[in-house]
Amino acid sequence: MVGGGAIAKAHVLAYESVPLLHSLEDVDPLFSVIAEATEELASQAASRLGFEKYLSDWKSLASTPDIDLVDIVAPTYLHADVAVEAAEHHKHILCEKPIAASSSDAKKMYEAAKRAGVVNAMGFNYRRLPAVLLAKKLLNDKALGKITQFRTSFLEDWGANPNMPFTWRYDSKRSGGGTLADLGSHIIDISRFLIGDIHSVCGLQDTFIKERKLPENPSESRKVDVDDYTCALLRFDNGVPGRLETSWASLGRKVYLDFEVNGTEGSVYFNFERPNELSYYSNADPKDLQGHRAIIMGPVHPYGSAFSFPATGSGAGFQDSLNNEIYEVLNGVANSSQVKPDFYDGWKVSQVVEAIQKSSISQKWVDVE
Amino acid sequence: MVGGGAIAKAHVLAYESVPLLHSLEDVDPLFSVIAEATEELASQAASRLGFEKYLSDWKSLASTPDIDLVDIVAPTYLHADVAVEAAEHHKHILCEKPIAASSSDAKKMYEAAKRAGVVNAMGFNYRRLPAVLLAKKLLNDKALGKITQFRTSFLEDWGANPNMPFTWRYDSKRSGGGTLADLGSHIIDISRFLIGDIHSVCGLQDTFIKERKLPENPSESRKVDVDDYTCALLRFDNGVPGRLETSWASLGRKVYLDFEVNGTEGSVYFNFERPNELSYYSNADPKDLQGHRAIIMGPVHPYGSAFSFPATGSGAGFQDSLNNEIYEVLNGVANSSQVKPDFYDGWKVSQVVEAIQKSSISQKWVDVE
Amino acid sequence: MVGGGAIAKAHVLAYESVPLLHSLEDVDPLFSVIAEATEELASQAASRLGFEKYLSDWKSLASTPDIDLVDIVAPTYLHADVAVEAAEHHKHILCEKPIAASSSDAKKMYEAAKRAGVVNAMGFNYRRLPAVLLAKKLLNDKALGKITQFRTSFLEDWGANPNMPFTWRYDSKRSGGGTLADLGSHIIDISRFLIGDIHSVCGLQDTFIKERKLPENPSESRKVDVDDYTCALLRFDNGVPGRLETSWASLGRKVYLDFEVNGTEGSVYFNFERPNELSYYSNADPKDLQGHRAIIMGPVHPYGSAFSFPATGSGAGFQDSLNNEIYEVLNGVANSSQVKPDFYDGWKVSQVVEAIQKSSISQKWVDVE
Amino acid sequence: MVGGGAIAKAHVLAYESVPLLHSLEDVDPLFSVIAEATEELASQAASRLGFEKYLSDWKSLASTPDIDLVDIVAPTYLHADVAVEAAEHHKHILCEKPIAASSSDAKKMYEAAKRAGVVNAMGFNYRRLPAVLLAKKLLNDKALGKITQFRTSFLEDWGANPNMPFTWRYDSKRSGGGTLADLGSHIIDISRFLIGDIHSVCGLQDTFIKERKLPENPSESRKVDVDDYTCALLRFDNGVPGRLETSWASLGRKVYLDFEVNGTEGSVYFNFERPNELSYYSNADPKDLQGHRAIIMGPVHPYGSAFSFPATGSGAGFQDSLNNEIYEVLNGVANSSQVKPDFYDGWKVSQVVEAIQKSSISQKWVDVE
Repeated sequence: MVGGGAIAKAHVLAYESVPLLHSLEDVDPLFSVIAEATEELASQAASRLGFEKYLSDWKSLASTPDIDLVDIVAPTYLHADVAVEAAEHHKHILCEKPIAASSSDAKKMYEAAKRAGVVNAMGFNYRRLPAVLLAKKLLNDKALGKITQFRTSFLEDWGANPNMPFTWRYDSKRSGGGTLADLGSHIIDISRFLIGDIHSVCGLQDTFIKERKLPENPSESRKVDVDDYTCALLRFDNGVPGRLETSWASLGRKVYLDFEVNGTEGSVYFNFERPNELSYYSNADPKDLQGHRAIIMGPVHPYGSAFSFPATGSGAGFQDSLNNEIYEVLNGVANSSQVKPDFYDGWKVSQVVEAIQKSSISQKWVDVE
Repeated sequence: MVGGGAIAKAHVLAYESVPLLHSLEDVDPLFSVIAEATEELASQAASRLGFEKYLSDWKSLASTPDIDLVDIVAPTYLHADVAVEAAEHHKHILCEKPIAASSSDAKKMYEAAKRAGVVNAMGFNYRRLPAVLLAKKLLNDKALGKITQFRTSFLEDWGANPNMPFTWRYDSKRSGGGTLADLGSHIIDISRFLIGDIHSVCGLQDTFIKERKLPENPSESRKVDVDDYTCALLRFDNGVPGRLETSWASLGRKVYLDFEVNGTEGSVYFNFERPNELSYYSNADPKDLQGHRAIIMGPVHPYGSAFSFPATGSGAGFQDSLNNEIYEVLNGVANSSQVKPDFYDGWKVSQVVEAIQKSSISQKWVDVE
Repeated sequence: MVGGGAIAKAHVLAYESVPLLHSLEDVDPLFSVIAEATEELASQAASRLGFEKYLSDWKSLASTPDIDLVDIVAPTYLHADVAVEAAEHHKHILCEKPIAASSSDAKKMYEAAKRAGVVNAMGFNYRRLPAVLLAKKLLNDKALGKITQFRTSFLEDWGANPNMPFTWRYDSKRSGGGTLADLGSHIIDISRFLIGDIHSVCGLQDTFIKERKLPENPSESRKVDVDDYTCALLRFDNGVPGRLETSWASLGRKVYLDFEVNGTEGSVYFNFERPNELSYYSNADPKDLQGHRAIIMGPVHPYGSAFSFPATGSGAGFQDSLNNEIYEVLNGVANSSQVKPDFYDGWKVSQVVEAIQKSSISQKWVDVE
Repeated sequence: MVGGGAIAKAHVLAYESVPLLHSLEDVDPLFSVIAEATEELASQAASRLGFEKYLSDWKSLASTPDIDLVDIVAPTYLHADVAVEAAEHHKHILCEKPIAASSSDAKKMYEAAKRAGVVNAMGFNYRRLPAVLLAKKLLNDKALGKITQFRTSFLEDWGANPNMPFTWRYDSKRSGGGTLADLGSHIIDISRFLIGDIHSVCGLQDTFIKERKLPENPSESRKVDVDDYTCALLRFDNGVPGRLETSWASLGRKVYLDFEVNGTEGSVYFNFERPNELSYYSNADPKDLQGHRAIIMGPVHPYGSAFSFPATGSGAGFQDSLNNEIYEVLNGVANSSQVKPDFYDGWKVSQVVEAIQKSSISQKWVDVE
């Protein structure tokens, strides 16, 4: 594991839980090595997260012989180097989103992984929620008819706090962008997953808190050059119009990740504020009995057999989505079978991010490469 | 009254109810004359709606001596001629939205009304809802701090039906546009009311049902040249970014008119699916007790004294908003005081509509005139 | 009309709106006479509500020759005398709920009306909501299978205010009870309407604010002998178990009138906080697509043709329910056809109220007479 | 561990996750022995759940030397014997709810544990939810003023299926009751936790599916002698009135565990359908800004530091509540400090269950012992 922050802990929990949750009886992940920025941080992370060894040097980690899987939970700007190195040493790789600080880095990662033939997986956990997968199933089954329009948002509010200090997240070189890269990459992934590739975009971005204090020296400030807010018009390859919207400065919104698909025969709506529920409207219901159905996820739904307790409505939050993601990764590693979403998807998402960023500057529609 | 359709009925109901609801004890509206397209339609409308006289010629109506107020509930393409004529005969005017089929027509109306010094009011009823006015009050009181972002939608689904026949609504020359003009004009009004004038826009429009059958001859079809869907990025004069979205083809959405304002100190959210409720989030609440408050409207809120029954939660739907609108109009006519929103607002809204339409064609940002 | 308070205004509005809303083209209610407690109150009410004459003596009103309908919106303790007198003078009668301050009075009213053969209607307006009637339709159609259980509440919070002065409502002799008689009579009516007659009850009542100041002399207080809270277990004649709950001291609940019916094939849930919506769960939906449907009322639903504006989702609050009630009454009077719910239903509801009150004192189950 | 069913798996997951989630760095649970009904079942459970040894004889397990904690997740009728034996061998004990099949058994367990001085904990996990604990904090802080009324429900629908075969759950001797013992014990615990001890009760119980087929021989049926539905009136020691309601036959309700506390200064409402949210209404808010606040749980709330990912809104479902419960148990065992809720609470809950059952038969109010 490269990185020992908050998301590292959630990953470790998932590795610990998945074999039992998903009845992977022959799989027993060993927590071999963790790398962090300094010897001290690495040592603390190893002890806190239960790793056998630690390193302050991810390069050595990527080339450690006994490791099957490198899990990259480091800051975004490190992803590319770590991933390419790991691929070259024929390690399987799970990489947190966004894939990289630029689409050219993302492409390098994709190509390195492809060349090496290793399992390469992206940490787009939200598409692992049962409710999102039920939406996908309805789309696959053409239950919504021809899709006419799509909308998605990811709004949070922790970024509204002007006293949060400057970190790499606020530096576009290192983060690849603000809310659009951080939150937006999740919903771009969902957009591609549900509707398909995006042809062109037109974006509007804004930064509300234009500078932030340095954590090590609060009397000094640094310019924030990433977006606190993005809204973008979308045109998918298949012609469907839509929009996406991200902000970490929407006071009152916590993990407000939502999407709506409208088709000629029905609609679905999802909001992570009710993570275990899909809202489905069918035009085929009798005229006087039509209404959005609040379908609560349970054992009959995707990943339903992996609920910690097999009662409809007893799941499924953030950790469940991560557990399902890690299950797919462990399964892929165990069977040497490729997992989706992979680096290709990560790269494609990063191209959409960059197209929106370019469009926001040029104030013109931009085709996604 | 010019026009005898569905909305005419709702207006008549409002005129009948308002004096009692709003304690306008000296006001007793007389229903003098109604005009419709033909003698027969006019006669039926008069009898159905309780008008003394009827005409198949709105020109005579606009010049009828004893009339104080001309209420225009006719198809959009007639608004300008009727309104200008009425203004020239010094009649006060209430005009349904959208104001006209073009912003140049809207301007003529505005100028004619201004020249004549008559009360001129626009039928933007949704800003007359107590919950919307409470949002406005919070903004006026700076309760949300500095506004950072805005979003609004108006989604319905009756237009998803491909069997609905061709009418003037689907002909841009006569309607001035599709969902953007019809539904969008309401939320553009709310945007201007809450946030201020819009500086520039970038729109995306689409038409899903590209032709519709003629009602009089279903074997023949006509091309639909208006939008079934619009999404637009917005930049307000005061710098606030935002978006608006309209569709009458979002299956499952009935009167889904919503808006959200995020500021540095709080947020408000409104959705007409719960017409009598404003959701308010205050950053000033104690950290562990922060959450969106569902404030249900009652006698302590704007127009609260005009609830038909003085119990919090007993109102307030579409008709309540219309009653409040008509109250303002009757009050304005009785006291010869100008009412807001007026033709100026109608004109400004129509400029935004046209800017979005232009932008959708040119695929570029367009400044609102 | 006997009584000129808040509900009187809502009734007058309904009489004014109903002919147009419900296309009762030959019906044009005349507001002849209103009676209030004193000459002064009566005069004010007549002028405010638009009545031709006024009286401080309801007895003369009940015998006035030209009157077809007596609408009783007076304090509960007056209902019986007024209604019996009106019936004896062969007037049709609409009576607000609860029917009377005792079930023996209620019985007298029922018998007098029956003897006289007059239309006698009870003001249980909530069963006139489209959503409640859709629930009834589903029950009639056996869409829920065999009914297994029922629950209903009516919670409000205006009675939580200890500074509200003493009135006849807090005196059981005059009001017939507190929340159970006032709010409970509505949901007992709905219980009987949906499920059937109630066989036996076991009640728990409580009074939180045990005395209140006299309005005319705040230094003096009077004992409150009615319930601020009631919960009762129910057993219906057909064996279905259930409960009802009422309070006007549930802070935060405004017009929280809800009910749920569970059957072997489905369920319905209604809450007046979303007055225009019925939630319906069908066990016949595919296993992975089962969920409560939020059905929003529109033209295809009961009374849907009487929406002020014919758009799904544009109604239907308190006044709509009252308009539908008054429509039935006007229709009944015009055609001399009896209306349901009538005094028989009012009487039966009052017997349930009294059984719960007795049971609360005796702490035993009590059979409803 | 005694028992290897669905809940056993959830417990094991919790033991695995808790040290990391709750930073119990010195605690590392070892999964020593599991007991099941037969050798085969025990062997499978051990392999599936990762236990070192297995036994088909819980007695030997309870006396195994190296074990610190016995976790009883066996059928209810076994709890008492296992717990007493374990206590006598000075093992700490965690016992799933309901504590036992009778209150006399529960008392034996309580006394044995007390005598032995072992940590004895009850598996009432729902009171471990952050939202429930925030409600408790508001009560402790007197934020709601004087409590006036309380209501709680636990409704599910899996028991509505008539084809579910007969098991020990449907046999009162072995289960101690139906929905009331199974679901009701959770909400009785919450009632006692939030409001206090219950003085007297009056219950109504019903069984909808009166017999069920034997799993081993579907041509034969057995009588169900437990409740599919219970509603009970409550009177707490402190005078507060209330009610509780349970059913596993409420079609459409999944894990509908809710409660509402009304006080003179505010109210709280919780529903596990939104497990991570507490609704709070404060009478101290300005009159026109009062409304139920939807407070979403995060790091600032109880157990907030133990979210798997430290983002408000990213938790907290069934497994989170269980993790928090197991944390308390592990902490108690590590520090030999008693944990609440304990067997005393389990016993008290079982007395309420029995009082309601008696009352339902006698049709009278019954005092809780």
